[in-house]
Amino acid sequence: MNNRQYTKYLFEKIQSLSNANPGVTRETYGKGENSTHHFLLKELKKFNSSIEIDYGGNFLASYKGKSKKKIVIGSHLDSQKHGGNFDGLAGVIMGIILIKTLFENKIIPKYTIAVMGIRGEESCWFPYSYIGSKIAVGEFNKKLLHSLKRSDTNKSLYYHINKSGFDAKKVSVNKVKFDLKNFKYFIEPHIEQGPVLEKKRIPLGIVTSIRGSFRFRDAVCKGEYLHSGATPMDYRRDSVVAVSSLINEMNIYWDKQLKRGNDLTITFGQFFTDPEEHSFAKSSGHVSFCIDVRSSSIKTLNLTKKYMIKQIQKIESKTKTKFFLGKETNSKPALMNNKLIKIFEDYSKSKKIKSLIMPSGAGHDSSVFANYGIPSLMLFVRNKNGSHNPREYMDIKHFMQVFEVLNGVITNKL
Amino acid sequence: MNNRQYTKYLFEKIQSLSNANPGVTRETYGKGENSTHHFLLKELKKFNSSIEIDYGGNFLASYKGKSKKKIVIGSHLDSQKHGGNFDGLAGVIMGIILIKTLFENKIIPKYTIAVMGIRGEESCWFPYSYIGSKIAVGEFNKKLLHSLKRSDTNKSLYYHINKSGFDAKKVSVNKVKFDLKNFKYFIEPHIEQGPVLEKKRIPLGIVTSIRGSFRFRDAVCKGEYLHSGATPMDYRRDSVVAVSSLINEMNIYWDKQLKRGNDLTITFGQFFTDPEEHSFAKSSGHVSFCIDVRSSSIKTLNLTKKYMIKQIQKIESKTKTKFFLGKETNSKPALMNNKLIKIFEDYSKSKKIKSLIMPSGAGHDSSVFANYGIPSLMLFVRNKNGSHNPREYMDIKHFMQVFEVLNGVITNKL
Repeated sequence: MNNRQYTKYLFEKIQSLSNANPGVTRETYGKGENSTHHFLLKELKKFNSSIEIDYGGNFLASYKGKSKKKIVIGSHLDSQKHGGNFDGLAGVIMGIILIKTLFENKIIPKYTIAVMGIRGEESCWFPYSYIGSKIAVGEFNKKLLHSLKRSDTNKSLYYHINKSGFDAKKVSVNKVKFDLKNFKYFIEPHIEQGPVLEKKRIPLGIVTSIRGSFRFRDAVCKGEYLHSGATPMDYRRDSVVAVSSLINEMNIYWDKQLKRGNDLTITFGQFFTDPEEHSFAKSSGHVSFCIDVRSSSIKTLNLTKKYMIKQIQKIESKTKTKFFLGKETNSKPALMNNKLIKIFEDYSKSKKIKSLIMPSGAGHDSSVFANYGIPSLMLFVRNKNGSHNPREYMDIKHFMQVFEVLNGVITNKL
Repeated sequence: MNNRQYTKYLFEKIQSLSNANPGVTRETYGKGENSTHHFLLKELKKFNSSIEIDYGGNFLASYKGKSKKKIVIGSHLDSQKHGGNFDGLAGVIMGIILIKTLFENKIIPKYTIAVMGIRGEESCWFPYSYIGSKIAVGEFNKKLLHSLKRSDTNKSLYYHINKSGFDAKKVSVNKVKFDLKNFKYFIEPHIEQGPVLEKKRIPLGIVTSIRGSFRFRDAVCKGEYLHSGATPMDYRRDSVVAVSSLINEMNIYWDKQLKRGNDLTITFGQFFTDPEEHSFAKSSGHVSFCIDVRSSSIKTLNLTKKYMIKQIQKIESKTKTKFFLGKETNSKPALMNNKLIKIFEDYSKSKKIKSLIMPSGAGHDSSVFANYGIPSLMLFVRNKNGSHNPREYMDIKHFMQVFEVLNGVITNKL
């Protein structure tokens, strides 16, 4: 099979292994993720690569180069429930195609080329980001092994790691198996989850930074249920009005920050009154909602949080309501390696493959490696219909164009 | 028993008959409403009143005066699910106390005094307002007899009217049983459902008008679910942002109208993203919400609707979303009789019982009688903690003060 045919074969095979009509389901440390890992490891053995698996079940398949320093190509292999087939998987397959190409052409590359299959990136299974890559670099907080429960089974991460055949006890003492000091670069090809490349008809995105975030997943605003006709404006304590007002203020603030050139997104994805008590004839006394704020600048994140809290205080006093933001989760922004960005940009230009320099709004495993200190880069592949849904669609043509750039840079430019 | 003791006894008796811990439940044409009617009719017979029951189960208990022209004192006897014991019931009990007083003091009043117990006012059971009073005046739309289903049983209004022992067939041809041309005045005592009298410590509200309304109970805004981090502001189609923006605009508009002296309330009591699809990591593609707008001026209602639709169009184009307002229901504003207002105001002043001239924000049966052409008045009784909830609380002391005014006016001033 040529590279294109083989790529297609791998995607189709894994689609059928993790089929969950509609879309695919590859649960973190569950059936879909496990069988995807098993299948790809079997394939990787065909190309003379040596395989290591760490205590958390991440795999690293190395194709020996002149130096033992490694260029690691990797991404995660789990998916959301009824998610798309390309998210994460495309990056691992691109690494495999690279090793296949080296093997078939009997090339001994300058650096050892390794493909990494990462566990547990989708925080829908365990409410935590980057489980696999944090285990790989020894930064996983052991307290979470027992406290994190998988959303479908309600069983602990500890249980699921062991159930999948790995050693949660070693994870709990942050044992690291991979030889990280020889990781020269970490490169993560990944579909773009936003619409930018598709709308601009550009196959390749070269990522400058991965946004960090702060989130309040379970915020609440409390007011009072009051008769909609009989309660004058001044007597109201309407939580729908209060939260709507916050959303409005934060959108105005977002727009201003963009105009000043600051990187930011602000999203209120959930907003619901209480179905037990809400009524068309009462102002609402209870709203549940969530806040997701992202930026590639830690300063912007901090200023935004500060501004938001000030707004909430104003709104509380104006609407006589009370906000309870609940537990905060957050992640650090990460910068991609400037040298790598430049090399990839120049090379794609020389090959007349269009590329776009852009930030990554979504979080990715690369941020863990970059913040650990390994020079890292993400390559986005043009993709249609967003991700995390069955309609996610990456054209193999665009995948092959990005592969051409990756292969060319690694063979000739690094 | 003196009037105060007897009033207490009636409230307590009906509380226990319709007890639904917490609060009471008197379903329209259901067990709670039916047993309340039966019990009060039995009581009314003690005071030499003659009883008629119409095809829809409303009762009219008349105590003969010198003239066959009637002053009707009435209100509804249903309640919301786990509602309060005073809403509606207080008006009927006040009528009964009046007849008891006339009977015990052997007074033959100038006009015949009738107590009316009205069916089906709470639109939570059948999604329609004033079923009982519209049947009483022959204005009930017969198509609704089959299409309206009760929220707890999903059976038709037709079924429930017959099941309660009345004649839905006669309702369907708008047969009227009561002698409406002899209704001289309709007076409805009712607890205030808002906080105004309580906060101002005034026992009696004399109502100038009953607000009309328009409502969209099942409105929807559709946008698109998009990755919260990966989708820039310009590409978003966020329905939470769109509806929040509408709520904000309408609150600003409301405030402006109040400053111009226009009577208005605007309420968005329900607002919810779709629990099947919403996520903290996606902008939302779907919001369900409802709109309730009330005013005592039909002109203000119309202008508000026009303004709202213009705002929706602006927001749709700005946010690339689409609003679907769904079916509209509405009710006409009604004016209370000016002569009656003046007489009650003067009389309460002469008795040093404080009163407040005020509009009624909530809808009431009086609006049906007023719009039918019968000079009508509502008297509000001070009440704590709003209505439609178990904490609703009317102090008997305030009830007796309002009764003193009602009794005095009817005996001496009409």
